[in-house]
Amino acid sequence: MRQIGIGIAGLGTVGAGVYKHLAQNRALLTERVGAELVVRRAVVRDVNKPRVAGPPPGELTTRWQDLIDDPAVDIVVELMGGIDEPLALINAAIDAGKVVVTGNKALLAEHGREIFARAAGKKVPVFFEASTAGGIPIIKTIREALIANHIVSIHGIINGTSNYILTRMTDAGLDFSTALAEAQAQGYAEADPTLDINGWDAAHKAIILASLAYGFWVETGNIFVEGIDKLTATDIRFAGELGYRVKLLAIIKADAGPENGGGVEVRVHPTLIPKTHVLASVSGVFNAVRVCGDVVGETLFYGRGAGQDPTASAVISDLAEAAVALNGERRCYGFTPHGLYGTCRPLEGIRSRYYLRLAVDDRPGVLAQVAGILGHNEIGISSVVQPETHDEAGRAQLVLMLDRASHRQMQTALDEILRLGCVMPPAALLRVESFGAE
Amino acid sequence: MRQIGIGIAGLGTVGAGVYKHLAQNRALLTERVGAELVVRRAVVRDVNKPRVAGPPPGELTTRWQDLIDDPAVDIVVELMGGIDEPLALINAAIDAGKVVVTGNKALLAEHGREIFARAAGKKVPVFFEASTAGGIPIIKTIREALIANHIVSIHGIINGTSNYILTRMTDAGLDFSTALAEAQAQGYAEADPTLDINGWDAAHKAIILASLAYGFWVETGNIFVEGIDKLTATDIRFAGELGYRVKLLAIIKADAGPENGGGVEVRVHPTLIPKTHVLASVSGVFNAVRVCGDVVGETLFYGRGAGQDPTASAVISDLAEAAVALNGERRCYGFTPHGLYGTCRPLEGIRSRYYLRLAVDDRPGVLAQVAGILGHNEIGISSVVQPETHDEAGRAQLVLMLDRASHRQMQTALDEILRLGCVMPPAALLRVESFGAE
Repeated sequence: MRQIGIGIAGLGTVGAGVYKHLAQNRALLTERVGAELVVRRAVVRDVNKPRVAGPPPGELTTRWQDLIDDPAVDIVVELMGGIDEPLALINAAIDAGKVVVTGNKALLAEHGREIFARAAGKKVPVFFEASTAGGIPIIKTIREALIANHIVSIHGIINGTSNYILTRMTDAGLDFSTALAEAQAQGYAEADPTLDINGWDAAHKAIILASLAYGFWVETGNIFVEGIDKLTATDIRFAGELGYRVKLLAIIKADAGPENGGGVEVRVHPTLIPKTHVLASVSGVFNAVRVCGDVVGETLFYGRGAGQDPTASAVISDLAEAAVALNGERRCYGFTPHGLYGTCRPLEGIRSRYYLRLAVDDRPGVLAQVAGILGHNEIGISSVVQPETHDEAGRAQLVLMLDRASHRQMQTALDEILRLGCVMPPAALLRVESFGAE
Repeated sequence: MRQIGIGIAGLGTVGAGVYKHLAQNRALLTERVGAELVVRRAVVRDVNKPRVAGPPPGELTTRWQDLIDDPAVDIVVELMGGIDEPLALINAAIDAGKVVVTGNKALLAEHGREIFARAAGKKVPVFFEASTAGGIPIIKTIREALIANHIVSIHGIINGTSNYILTRMTDAGLDFSTALAEAQAQGYAEADPTLDINGWDAAHKAIILASLAYGFWVETGNIFVEGIDKLTATDIRFAGELGYRVKLLAIIKADAGPENGGGVEVRVHPTLIPKTHVLASVSGVFNAVRVCGDVVGETLFYGRGAGQDPTASAVISDLAEAAVALNGERRCYGFTPHGLYGTCRPLEGIRSRYYLRLAVDDRPGVLAQVAGILGHNEIGISSVVQPETHDEAGRAQLVLMLDRASHRQMQTALDEILRLGCVMPPAALLRVESFGAE
């Protein structure tokens, strides 16, 4: 199996997450990628600092130049933060022909034009899925999945800190500074939250999305940016009374008629959106991006926008793409079989909760008989409702919500129930799904 | 510019859509792909039938073998429907080393294992984004964007016909056959709706998603499938009273503890889901797929699942991937600049609706002065509210919802308003977005 060497610059939250998940899901990734992703070297500020996840001390260095000089490093992952050092590292990596993966939105927003011009000149791929809405693959989606489309508009909730603060201001009536303090206490806002609350973190991401969608690198001076830092609880409340929720929205549009002078508009600001729109229900630190294309129509993508794990997922997907680029050929010809999961579970063993409706004789004792059969089949009853409605034959309706049971248990019990003289077939048996709450 | 030759088998709804959008967005696609996608030949049943969109008659044929024999056809797009002929075509295309694009979910569900084994043997890519949830790039997302993840679960609303029928049964209290007839009249159900209402259309898609997620091709005999055809309005109503909505859900899980015997479960059936869950609000012919990964957490993808345009968007994204595979190298090194859109629109010309709150003296005539200034700046007022609340200084709050105006108009008007003696700065000015309703 071919090995692909990775050098990580920065073992902070995201870098450590990338290292951890590369290790934990190694077998699966190797099967899917067709090559083994191996971290060869990592750049840190202090090689002696104790770490939960990371390479052995011998593979740590404080000099990013070591990633460039190491011929065993095929891919450079830039997760340092800041501008000048990352820019120097990425330029050096491109010049050395090493594939680049970065999550640095501020760097791309300010220097994307020159970085990608250099990358094209050297024919070196640069990947940056982690730069925007970590858990949502919006870069790949706009660049590849929606390639057939003129992008009509993009509306994004792409700053989790702001969305958390706005959610708390809306739901709990908190004022801005109280909600910010709460976000900091919860770890959803940094000690210095400036770029989150003044709108520029979202603006950097909007610049990246707009540039991908429209093919020219958007300059920071050409966009309108307003943060949530001057927003009052009063206006959120008044907006609510008028049927709106206030969200920090990145808005990108090219739907301008001639009356608007053509061109593309890019702006980030607190925005009133109708409460009934699905974006209004995106709460807390979640992100969502709505994209309208002239062919595909309306699409929407939802997930966690930041945090160690979702961002690591994005970085690793870029590493897999980088590995494909390095392999020179696409190993996946549509579907990669492997034996890591085995087979389908037999139907009989599949467990779920159930809704069971029975048409029963309207007399005492019926529920006891039904409950008795469920009981000796070890199926719990979570609630019973007997609606007023009767069917055409005058039978009562008995509705039971049942606890988790296997298909086999449920079928056995149902067969017995339908043999009761007081129950009229057919029964209505539906499954219930609570999304992880079970 | 290199040309990539395409042969389309089938010029029905989707095939005609692919042809139409390839033509309409040709300039954009050529820039993005780095090659020109050219339809060289199309297979139809009747070459003399009049067509709205399609190649000239000289490029039409009734024999799919002509696509295989034509050396100018690099990519074979299979949109014929059915099983036997498409299978023969795809096998022949793979053997001839032509890249395959198909949207045939039934074919993949039944013969995916052998098709992909053949493709891997010949190193020929097979793309099938259009097979599942047309407008949602869920194949690419699971295969590439979430590659770092063990997929914990997938919950999909992936049959638009069923979802339309269930939406109408729920919202209008219709019974199944009335809702089905309505769906047929609206063009949302086919004349023979069997595979939609018995669950097997969704099951074919679930097989594709499960196979991608878990690396073994799921057999149709191993999954539990129940359609909506026996569902009653009564049970939908009772479920509603209990706090649930009924959706036809494809459920794919590998979260089984040892008590469940391990393995993967795949099932499709009407399912009660909590009304508060975002999937419960996916209405009409829209599709949505929720994917949980062990690294990324919860994600959700929403869009149109069928229809000419969304499906064409998926097919064309596959054609672009196929072109990259044929070019042998990835032309896109992260970002492809082009000049099709020009530049950013200046802020002054950006138009939107506004929410404006002013702190004003609580006396008659104030609204007239404010309205006068807005009027001579040609800004319409859509509503005015004067909440009971007063601020600390005893001033009244005046809240105005304003019609669309440019940034320049609004700033000019606001400057004038804030110079009124009866208005106390600062004003709260927020923008309003209604998603296409404006």
